[in-house]
Amino acid sequence: MREVRSHLDIINEELRNLNFPQEPAELYEPIQYLLAIGGKRIRPALTLLAAEMFGSDSAKALPAAVAIELFHNFSLMHDDIMDKAPLRRGNETVHEKWGVNTAILSGDFMLIQAYQYIAQNDASVLAPLLTIFNDTAAKVCIGQQLDMNYEKSEGVSIAQYIEMIRLKTAVLLGAALQMGATVANAEEKDAQALYRCGVNLGIAFQLQDDYLDVYGDSDKFGKRVGGDISENKKTFLLLKALELANGKDKSEINHWLNQTEFDSQEKISAIVAIYNKLGVQAYTKQEMENYTNMAYRSLSEINIPNSQKEPLLRIAESLLLRNK
Amino acid sequence: MREVRSHLDIINEELRNLNFPQEPAELYEPIQYLLAIGGKRIRPALTLLAAEMFGSDSAKALPAAVAIELFHNFSLMHDDIMDKAPLRRGNETVHEKWGVNTAILSGDFMLIQAYQYIAQNDASVLAPLLTIFNDTAAKVCIGQQLDMNYEKSEGVSIAQYIEMIRLKTAVLLGAALQMGATVANAEEKDAQALYRCGVNLGIAFQLQDDYLDVYGDSDKFGKRVGGDISENKKTFLLLKALELANGKDKSEINHWLNQTEFDSQEKISAIVAIYNKLGVQAYTKQEMENYTNMAYRSLSEINIPNSQKEPLLRIAESLLLRNK
Repeated sequence: MREVRSHLDIINEELRNLNFPQEPAELYEPIQYLLAIGGKRIRPALTLLAAEMFGSDSAKALPAAVAIELFHNFSLMHDDIMDKAPLRRGNETVHEKWGVNTAILSGDFMLIQAYQYIAQNDASVLAPLLTIFNDTAAKVCIGQQLDMNYEKSEGVSIAQYIEMIRLKTAVLLGAALQMGATVANAEEKDAQALYRCGVNLGIAFQLQDDYLDVYGDSDKFGKRVGGDISENKKTFLLLKALELANGKDKSEINHWLNQTEFDSQEKISAIVAIYNKLGVQAYTKQEMENYTNMAYRSLSEINIPNSQKEPLLRIAESLLLRNK
Repeated sequence: MREVRSHLDIINEELRNLNFPQEPAELYEPIQYLLAIGGKRIRPALTLLAAEMFGSDSAKALPAAVAIELFHNFSLMHDDIMDKAPLRRGNETVHEKWGVNTAILSGDFMLIQAYQYIAQNDASVLAPLLTIFNDTAAKVCIGQQLDMNYEKSEGVSIAQYIEMIRLKTAVLLGAALQMGATVANAEEKDAQALYRCGVNLGIAFQLQDDYLDVYGDSDKFGKRVGGDISENKKTFLLLKALELANGKDKSEINHWLNQTEFDSQEKISAIVAIYNKLGVQAYTKQEMENYTNMAYRSLSEINIPNSQKEPLLRIAESLLLRNK
């Protein structure tokens, strides 16, 4: 995928050359650090691609793309504090390396920088871009709060879980596409269809992450299998199993959820055995497919030649078909 | 001052009716709480007043005014975490009442809400408003970082201190005025002169806060006198005293700065005696006057009838002449 690789280069170069004040270093070093330790840059790549889809030069969409990536990393920096996460992309998190205060203030600064990139856009598209960005940013915060609430709560439904991942992660993919389309002066209804496409793809991606934790190839996937199970993470798979299970299976799941000391491998094997018995794998694949189909349906509603939709389809498929 | 009181009413009504999502309550309750426990609303009042100064209806400037007040309260919510402050306006801080995570995420949400109010402005003024707001927000973060750095550092100069308070608190007053002028389609050079007026007033206000901690009337001022001295706060007065003092006086100041256990009243009396001996009171009044004069000079550069400048002059004087 030539387009994607060159988009990545463009984005990474822009991120390396962010305009920082000379001092205080405490504010910008953590931002440069977090951006430098990687990330797949999928969101900004989608913004550039969406602009090209509607006939615009991708350079025109670069400020919006950078804004999206800065926002994404801001949310990671603050979420990592709240989640007390020690590692991000295999490296120390910012709050571990520099302390919580630095992670709060650097994160704030990063969010404001995102808005500085929004402000670089032409006055003719500024109002819709700012509105999309604001609405999305608010939703991501709500999603994070719901995620924290659900962690502590019993009886989270699948509908609640899907709504949470829609807000916390999927709307940002939708906004990434919609903003690219908006920069390229796409018709509003087309930009909105592209938004829905991105949101549904985002839900499918998150379901796939849940899926791969259990059914992924650990060598290719790069994470140990069953990490979510070991940590009692409320994934689609666990919630589906709790919904389907009766009697002995339900007791066994709850037994493992309530253990404070356990052998990780034993717990993972026991839970996976129940998942397999209940057909959770097939349900999850089906749900992913439902959201993928909805995404493709939204894409099909957009009134441009199919050839212009090809690059997005290829990215979606490359991301959805990995390692299954 | 009829205008100010009615401005306050307008602003407080708008803040009481902020549009919040139905859930999650964890996100918006802290915002409503912080806004409800008071604050003088000086910044948004300045925005409305600046719009009227240039012939606009104050209602037109309400979204910008609310954005400024939300931003101010966002920065208080996050700064209070960083400063480990137990109280704000005499009430528990948000992080004390709900925990650090809530204060981080509610603060983020509040910052995003501020931008949602910016987005309510006419497309014709959106670009300059967003630019002013972004630049100001970035400066406030830089000021907060410098403040934290200077707390731990020896040998902060008066120039550094003034630059820190300029960034941390004064630029927001400048921006409050500039945004009101911008909404009212003032000429850019007039809006910029009003910005400089606000920044210099802001520095004068902060110097006055430093002054009143020592030379204020504690009954009227509502704080115990000498709190800054007791806490070794690097105020203009302390930095000036350190600059002026020699020999025995300097040793005595440093002696008190290094004490970990002390009688508060004894420390305050000793330091105030040195301030008095060195003439720190007069130096501080002079510095306040310099910044006030600079503010008035900027105001005089604005090409509108003096009668239209009167309300701002009256507010400035009412704030500057309190209790001296």
